[in-house]
Amino acid sequence: MDNVVLLGIMAGAMTTGSIVPQVLKIVQSKSARDVSTLFFMIMAAGMLLWLIYGLLRQDFVIVLWNALSLSLTLVILTLKKVYS
Amino acid sequence: MDNVVLLGIMAGAMTTGSIVPQVLKIVQSKSARDVSTLFFMIMAAGMLLWLIYGLLRQDFVIVLWNALSLSLTLVILTLKKVYS
Repeated sequence: MDNVVLLGIMAGAMTTGSIVPQVLKIVQSKSARDVSTLFFMIMAAGMLLWLIYGLLRQDFVIVLWNALSLSLTLVILTLKKVYS
Repeated sequence: MDNVVLLGIMAGAMTTGSIVPQVLKIVQSKSARDVSTLFFMIMAAGMLLWLIYGLLRQDFVIVLWNALSLSLTLVILTLKKVYS
């Protein structure tokens, strides 16, 4: 695996991984009042487009992380619906 | 400009643009209690790595949007510091 792919895997682990503490914070506080629904809705739509972009550019790293991020974002939107 | 680049520009406009309502929500409510600092700190570090990834892959679209997203994320972290 070349260094650029490795860097992309690290980059994605951080940007996708960063969503996890936000999920946990909402679950623990049972509150998502200050979390913007619009933020996560537009984010989800954008991630879907990045996923297609990655497929078209055959950039496996982009596809992998955007598929995962999209899933986590949908979890947050569901929690926002449940707790708001 | 080919269609793949255009798709990348749309994708980035959405994922980066999605940060704007979160900034506005914090400014309007003067509250960022439910916003996770850890989320945005790891996100910022990841965006910096994506920016380097984009530079190494010579993917202009990745560089452009991650530079902008990183700036907006730093604004949110500053607001969180001010309002929490």
